Amino acid sequence: MELRNKDLLAIRDLSPEEILLILDTAESMKEISTRDIKKVPTLRGKTVINLFYEPSTRTRTSFEIAGKRLSADVINISSATSSTTKGETLKDTGRNLQAMNPDLIVIRHAAAGAPKILADALPVPVINAGDGAHEHPTQALLDAFTIREKKKTLAGITVAIIGDITHSRVARSNIALLQKMGAEVRLSGPYTMVPPYIEALGVSFIPDIGEAIRDADVIMMLRIQLERQQHGLFPTVREYARFFGLNRERLQRAKPDVLIMHPGPLNRGVEISPDVADGPYSIILDQVTNGVAVRMALLYLLIGK
Amino acid sequence: MELRNKDLLAIRDLSPEEILLILDTAESMKEISTRDIKKVPTLRGKTVINLFYEPSTRTRTSFEIAGKRLSADVINISSATSSTTKGETLKDTGRNLQAMNPDLIVIRHAAAGAPKILADALPVPVINAGDGAHEHPTQALLDAFTIREKKKTLAGITVAIIGDITHSRVARSNIALLQKMGAEVRLSGPYTMVPPYIEALGVSFIPDIGEAIRDADVIMMLRIQLERQQHGLFPTVREYARFFGLNRERLQRAKPDVLIMHPGPLNRGVEISPDVADGPYSIILDQVTNGVAVRMALLYLLIGK
Amino acid sequence: MELRNKDLLAIRDLSPEEILLILDTAESMKEISTRDIKKVPTLRGKTVINLFYEPSTRTRTSFEIAGKRLSADVINISSATSSTTKGETLKDTGRNLQAMNPDLIVIRHAAAGAPKILADALPVPVINAGDGAHEHPTQALLDAFTIREKKKTLAGITVAIIGDITHSRVARSNIALLQKMGAEVRLSGPYTMVPPYIEALGVSFIPDIGEAIRDADVIMMLRIQLERQQHGLFPTVREYARFFGLNRERLQRAKPDVLIMHPGPLNRGVEISPDVADGPYSIILDQVTNGVAVRMALLYLLIGK
Repeated sequence: MELRNKDLLAIRDLSPEEILLILDTAESMKEISTRDIKKVPTLRGKTVINLFYEPSTRTRTSFEIAGKRLSADVINISSATSSTTKGETLKDTGRNLQAMNPDLIVIRHAAAGAPKILADALPVPVINAGDGAHEHPTQALLDAFTIREKKKTLAGITVAIIGDITHSRVARSNIALLQKMGAEVRLSGPYTMVPPYIEALGVSFIPDIGEAIRDADVIMMLRIQLERQQHGLFPTVREYARFFGLNRERLQRAKPDVLIMHPGPLNRGVEISPDVADGPYSIILDQVTNGVAVRMALLYLLIGK
Repeated sequence: MELRNKDLLAIRDLSPEEILLILDTAESMKEISTRDIKKVPTLRGKTVINLFYEPSTRTRTSFEIAGKRLSADVINISSATSSTTKGETLKDTGRNLQAMNPDLIVIRHAAAGAPKILADALPVPVINAGDGAHEHPTQALLDAFTIREKKKTLAGITVAIIGDITHSRVARSNIALLQKMGAEVRLSGPYTMVPPYIEALGVSFIPDIGEAIRDADVIMMLRIQLERQQHGLFPTVREYARFFGLNRERLQRAKPDVLIMHPGPLNRGVEISPDVADGPYSIILDQVTNGVAVRMALLYLLIGK
Repeated sequence: MELRNKDLLAIRDLSPEEILLILDTAESMKEISTRDIKKVPTLRGKTVINLFYEPSTRTRTSFEIAGKRLSADVINISSATSSTTKGETLKDTGRNLQAMNPDLIVIRHAAAGAPKILADALPVPVINAGDGAHEHPTQALLDAFTIREKKKTLAGITVAIIGDITHSRVARSNIALLQKMGAEVRLSGPYTMVPPYIEALGVSFIPDIGEAIRDADVIMMLRIQLERQQHGLFPTVREYARFFGLNRERLQRAKPDVLIMHPGPLNRGVEISPDVADGPYSIILDQVTNGVAVRMALLYLLIGK
């Protein structure tokens, strides 16, 4: 079986079978990063371009490591050093890169839809590494991999996603993926951070976080972007932490085998308390480890066969 | 045959035979980038340093891809992260890099002559990747490669170079190369952007762009640097586009097999209209593709034999 | 023999035997960089992360070249593009990187102690590439390698370290290393730049630079950070150069086979005059060359066995 599309732009473009293919492939990739020699020749002579218009440690590094462990040549381009400062359009930047015969372009961009513009303009496969508040499909895939790794299945699992839903590409991609795979999704967060189209997504909204996490198998905390405070979406960091932060006391209402996830970077003491982030239920660092495996799988599936 | 100099600093240093050697070598290099495994071991164990004091996507990426496809280790240094912020002289930066035993240094710098300072101070080969308004020899070589690829020859070809001649290292390198190879060069552009020494260059100046492109085999549009407007070199972008931009209407005066070139990044709707940039005469993306091949050829000729 | 600690954080953690092991290993590494093919497969499949929170050409490039010549995959992360801009703690950044299964992390940070925080939090080996005014152990090791290379021994050698001792991690690491190896260390510099705990260090302070360098085998000039002037630590650059700069006249008091060292980048005409920096006693560029060898040795000893 193969992926049907040349690109990975959004979870909605993937069938449940394709999602399973990616997760299964990632399982065999994960083992490579535990070897003494963490490198296979699969993508030798392939050129992967990381085109990052937003700063990122985790995601860029994860893709770079994924590419290098498969022996690809990885080229990093960050917006600070790019021709975007010279007013070139994204499409022209893409066409220029395409003309250098890369095998795949990974793009992160502040504008929703930017990866699609690139993918439509170019024959080369494009992976969306996060576009504005739209999608972050590789994050949802690594989250699903991590849940499945711990719970053996995604079907029937209840996942509570807590925080700034409106502005979160992580939430959007996770909702789409989890629903496709038969999980139940509940959202919670301040009213100012819940999108109006929430019922159309087929998910429930539970204003009280205590209620939302009760009986959940997985609690996925979203990063609060502190600059939102200036826009009046929440009054103070302390108040946000008090009403929507996940702390040990609140966690007592959760199931005894609950899993705590967070896409990072953490705001310790805001959306998650340090003892919970570092505690026994947290699988936050598993997510990071699995991110490399999932990205290796995607590179392999899109250009390695 | 070999290149006589250790460096590539300016087109004027190359003989016609050397230019042909580079173009012929680039032809065989071009094929490598079309393979499934785009990598040959030619420069394995060689260290190539990209020392970029000006932001650049295209040129830095082109050199990096060229180096990696030849299996060199490529080290990128950009001015934002370099010791230049600590007041070190260029010569000292170069000597320090030299002390790490690199095999070749590629330098882009805002100051004309900077690559020569580096080359004179160091035994390692230096390639000028653009220095101020002085030269951009690899651009002229890839342009020549592209013209020859399409027209089978450079001798007897008429090339109209249009735009801000005074501030263009691309123009300067192209004029030198094209004249060496027996092409005829015509310039056009605003009077404020034509250098006073134009006749000494042995080229003609035709103020009216319509006249300049008539009977030209190749039209090379230069990028207008929009910040020049502040210096009063042209009144408005719209007026520049109207009098010196290449659009479909103006193109009707050109030969039916004319080639349109541009070094990028494009200012669409300023020096070139989108339909012309993307139209059937445009070989702008061929230039980019050939840039990788020409840079692979130069790396090979300077350090791979 | 092996290094006892998983990390290299400070010279004080190394025994004299370990220092000799590093220097001896570096000797065989140095030869690799003189080969036509400067690459050995020792660290193939290993991932080395360069995590630089301060700009640096020389040190970052030196580690990157060292890693690549040993065939490691090297990942550069600079603070400008990192999650630190998103308020993540250093420990969390480290844990996230650890989760991607790197083999070694090199860190430079403006805060003294940052590498230790990272090393204590992570199982992966950490190398301190300079932390605030605390330590720069690889600099001291490459300095020791260079002195030993020229003088055949460290024991009994007299080294005068001149300049801003208080703020110099280079001085601190060198004092520790040289004393361990039986060298005699003398300090000189403005009173405002000498730390109060100087006698506890077991070194002598000689206010007059002419006295300090008399009979010294090695003169190690420190870089003056010009921004210190704003803090009133010295009146003018000219006055600093006059009283504490090393120039040809002052050098006449030194031994005929004295060695001049400087960690770079140079402030020519401030702490060192150009004729001395480039003169016959200067081994400043040897230091840079040996830096690559010492870093190769450390990578090998920490993760290559």
